[in-house]
Amino acid sequence: MPSYSAPVEDTLFLLKDVLGYEKHSNLPGFAEATPDLVEAILKEGAKFSEEIVQPLNQSGDKIGCTRHDDGTVTTPPGFKEAYQSYVEAGWGGLSIPEQYGGQGMPATLSVILNEYLCSANQAFAMYPGLTAGAMAALLVHANDEIKDTYLPKMVTGEWTGTMNLTEPHCGTDLGMLRTKAAPQGDGSYKISGTKIFISAGDQDLSENIVHLVLARIEGAPEGTKGISLFVVPKKKLDADGNPGEMNGVSVGSIEEKMGIHGNATCVMNYDESVGYLVGEENKGLRAMFVMMNEARLGVGIQGLAQSEVAYQNAVTYAKDRIQGRSLTGPKNPEKQADPIIVHPDVRRVLMTIRSFNEAARALYMWTSLHGDVSHLSQDDAEKQASDDIMGLLTPVVKGVLTDKGFDNTVMAQQLYGGHGYIQEWGMEQFVRDARIAMIYEGANGVQALDLVGRKLPANGGRAIQAWFKEVGAFIKEHEGDEELGVYMKGLKQSLKDLQAATMWFMQNAMKNPDDAGAGSTDYMHLFGLVALGYMWTKIAIAANRKIKDGANGQEDWLKTKLTLGTFFMERVMPESSAHLARISTGSETMMSLDAEAF
Amino acid sequence: MPSYSAPVEDTLFLLKDVLGYEKHSNLPGFAEATPDLVEAILKEGAKFSEEIVQPLNQSGDKIGCTRHDDGTVTTPPGFKEAYQSYVEAGWGGLSIPEQYGGQGMPATLSVILNEYLCSANQAFAMYPGLTAGAMAALLVHANDEIKDTYLPKMVTGEWTGTMNLTEPHCGTDLGMLRTKAAPQGDGSYKISGTKIFISAGDQDLSENIVHLVLARIEGAPEGTKGISLFVVPKKKLDADGNPGEMNGVSVGSIEEKMGIHGNATCVMNYDESVGYLVGEENKGLRAMFVMMNEARLGVGIQGLAQSEVAYQNAVTYAKDRIQGRSLTGPKNPEKQADPIIVHPDVRRVLMTIRSFNEAARALYMWTSLHGDVSHLSQDDAEKQASDDIMGLLTPVVKGVLTDKGFDNTVMAQQLYGGHGYIQEWGMEQFVRDARIAMIYEGANGVQALDLVGRKLPANGGRAIQAWFKEVGAFIKEHEGDEELGVYMKGLKQSLKDLQAATMWFMQNAMKNPDDAGAGSTDYMHLFGLVALGYMWTKIAIAANRKIKDGANGQEDWLKTKLTLGTFFMERVMPESSAHLARISTGSETMMSLDAEAF
Repeated sequence: MPSYSAPVEDTLFLLKDVLGYEKHSNLPGFAEATPDLVEAILKEGAKFSEEIVQPLNQSGDKIGCTRHDDGTVTTPPGFKEAYQSYVEAGWGGLSIPEQYGGQGMPATLSVILNEYLCSANQAFAMYPGLTAGAMAALLVHANDEIKDTYLPKMVTGEWTGTMNLTEPHCGTDLGMLRTKAAPQGDGSYKISGTKIFISAGDQDLSENIVHLVLARIEGAPEGTKGISLFVVPKKKLDADGNPGEMNGVSVGSIEEKMGIHGNATCVMNYDESVGYLVGEENKGLRAMFVMMNEARLGVGIQGLAQSEVAYQNAVTYAKDRIQGRSLTGPKNPEKQADPIIVHPDVRRVLMTIRSFNEAARALYMWTSLHGDVSHLSQDDAEKQASDDIMGLLTPVVKGVLTDKGFDNTVMAQQLYGGHGYIQEWGMEQFVRDARIAMIYEGANGVQALDLVGRKLPANGGRAIQAWFKEVGAFIKEHEGDEELGVYMKGLKQSLKDLQAATMWFMQNAMKNPDDAGAGSTDYMHLFGLVALGYMWTKIAIAANRKIKDGANGQEDWLKTKLTLGTFFMERVMPESSAHLARISTGSETMMSLDAEAF
Repeated sequence: MPSYSAPVEDTLFLLKDVLGYEKHSNLPGFAEATPDLVEAILKEGAKFSEEIVQPLNQSGDKIGCTRHDDGTVTTPPGFKEAYQSYVEAGWGGLSIPEQYGGQGMPATLSVILNEYLCSANQAFAMYPGLTAGAMAALLVHANDEIKDTYLPKMVTGEWTGTMNLTEPHCGTDLGMLRTKAAPQGDGSYKISGTKIFISAGDQDLSENIVHLVLARIEGAPEGTKGISLFVVPKKKLDADGNPGEMNGVSVGSIEEKMGIHGNATCVMNYDESVGYLVGEENKGLRAMFVMMNEARLGVGIQGLAQSEVAYQNAVTYAKDRIQGRSLTGPKNPEKQADPIIVHPDVRRVLMTIRSFNEAARALYMWTSLHGDVSHLSQDDAEKQASDDIMGLLTPVVKGVLTDKGFDNTVMAQQLYGGHGYIQEWGMEQFVRDARIAMIYEGANGVQALDLVGRKLPANGGRAIQAWFKEVGAFIKEHEGDEELGVYMKGLKQSLKDLQAATMWFMQNAMKNPDDAGAGSTDYMHLFGLVALGYMWTKIAIAANRKIKDGANGQEDWLKTKLTLGTFFMERVMPESSAHLARISTGSETMMSLDAEAF
């Protein structure tokens, strides 16, 4: 049976020592988030994840969700009780304004707890995760009536939320969507159509479900300019605001999937279901994008989360499994064989995974803090700068953390040999669950195109220029620090490669946009290397400083971080030049084939 | 529903034009294998794979194998009938000497058919695949009585074979195995013990099963020097040589696995089962290695086979799925959107996969032809040279084709977006099935160690030196050929990197073997790049020659190959320098951590 221990100590080190979150204490919520309170919240969240949610992960995968003949959906045994505990603890409202019954803490705290929950049980974590995304969209775009009606119950978790975008014939290209909204003259609409791949589309956890649905109002323009966003409750609300009669929303079927079996992925049928407009007519995509940015960061974290839990279990196995001898002579002479962790190739795998995980955790936290600043700051310049960074980094976090997170689960599974392929050991579930994160919330190829095609040129390249300036200034500041030699070498080289790749796009992609498309995935991963290398360097600086300051018993633990950072620079960073080489070849070869030649 | 079309035209081009198999017509079997006959055999094998075996792939995955309360095992519906067709067609005996009822064709032909079968249905292909491996071991090591008793029925396929190595506490480290063999004084032994992960361990396809079992004869030395190989039939043979009473062999359970559900992976219990020694006492590993080399090549091909079928289906989807528009303006203006194959990033994925597949196919065929030469040649020098190449390349083919083959199935699945994650589309099965090939027959980390620790230093480095000489001479021969510019550049650079890495090992791994272990996986993949680059250059030469000779209507098809080869050199080869950089960092960083620090 796999196990999981939430990395609270790592999180606190990153928050306090590496990212210095206390510098934001001028922002609402941050002042209240004292170090002691943050530590208490994280420890409680860790306990909930480890003790309540994680034990349901394997059985949830095996048993999955069931759609009954009457159209109702049952989640795996134990999910209902665990969700009830989640509601009772009030986790869902942690970062929601107090006005709606929340606790008004920084969003970053919820984001961190999402990591723990996803490591413990990704399928379970998706239920509150989607609710959080739906709340984010309503908070920004809905009118007060809708907010007052729906948010308080979503904050407690008594009601959950979903996102309804995809239809059978359109996913990425939402301009083609066909779901209709007919105005009823009383401000409401009747929504009709079919949506597919709706995560958490139905379940037996909550009293009501608040579906956010993209649809086209009768007579609206074709394409993406005629799409509106609606709130469509599963059950209509009665005069007291309680769930009453059904609203024409039904589950056509549950998909049989590769993984995340504990979450019901539904085909949803809307049959003249009453819905209410969120935001402006025909501006639904804009409203949905708020939700999608939150969601994309959250999905990136799912990749890291599976990588983390897979790592932890692989370490346990590598220490327990005795097989063969060290290449340099027996390390365990009194036993029949050495544990496989004596082998460099086993360590290579473990350190590849962990050196990624630690920097990836820093990266999503750093990005999320920028998200908090962009929402909360009163300083317009700071707000804009953080919003730029958040927009630029979102596709990188989503794409890189899920691609690499998946690769890492595969590597961790590999250390188990044949046992890795057997269900009872749990490693193959991590692989199957991690796989979805590369696909949903915009497949990673779409993330790469978003980065290269939208985020780079936006506002005359303001965001990428700010990024180069920030990392460049950081390098300049620390260049003389001898302790950082290997870090500086790796970070400088990768930054240089990223700048060269950006320049190459500027020179070539204007003439031929396919030249940007051809290099987009490599560019996203090259960007990821720079970002992760930047985080590692920040971690190293903090670790060195703490060691010098007297490490309070953390010295070995901090030195391990320095070793992991060195490993990352030596072993992972060399990929940078290969990305640049590929980007620089452009699109000519790949576009020269007729479609028929494939 | 996924589909499959066996690449017969590609195979014939590789056999005849690229690898010139007809030059071996002096060897037994090759003379009979005329081009017309080979073409007829491949077409018939393709038809069998496409029409009989492939349609059972998805249902086989879904239904899987069943162990009944009486211990018998049932394969998925249709497998029995398909296997019967296999037996009736005589496929199992294609490359077995006529003396045992076979057709005496080159082994390479069977190896090629194995690719088709695995693409069609890997779980099914494993049943005859394991029989082929068992026959190979018996042919080389068993005495005439055993050969005469078992081979003829295995050749027809009426009986099947298995390999029994792994025990719960030992897989890679067979020296620890505990299964006992008690001599009965009549030349037979009683075998007792438990084996796990036994593919095709039981089924309802064949009259009898010939288990090859590693066990320790009472009083034999500990460790690997006390292991012997036994033939243990599922049912004892009666006086007429027909299967009679049960032999104490039973299936304890069937493993629940990530994939290959159509193949029963069994826990096998041997309870005083009568067995017969194969080869010499205590030399069982040597005998088993024959089987394992065959099997490793076969498993490498499984990786390619899943990559091939995943590619074919991804191409179909990429042409069918309309979504969004080309970056350079609508290509399909009369429709609502363009097919996604207009996108460079989609083509990048498709060409990455296919440019691998075509070179990987050439590589396994080239290696297999060396296997044929090493078995059949009368010229001792030629025999040894081919044997060296076969030994050197076996871990490369196994490790690289399965690692990359798996990655490719994941990339192909990705092109389907959400549909890739849904079982009915079949793509996620390719991923789950491909995953096992990286693990069994020696996990890929073990292959890398075999390459670096055993194959490189063997006989004073004779094999690797011969390899460098061959590729070096090839480069010299073709260096002036302007048409090969991009190929020569890529191949030369990667060869240089491989030579530098080899030199680095020589200088460092003698002092510290961990320095070899730390770079072993990168070395294996670097070797793979050189080998695949070598194959692409051979393909390009053959394609250019055929185009000049008048291509018989194949001109476009051959030009596509040249484009794919160019893509491989531009986009895949740059990885070479990253491998070298990693190898050159050695083991210091990764060995500096205590096990407790992980």
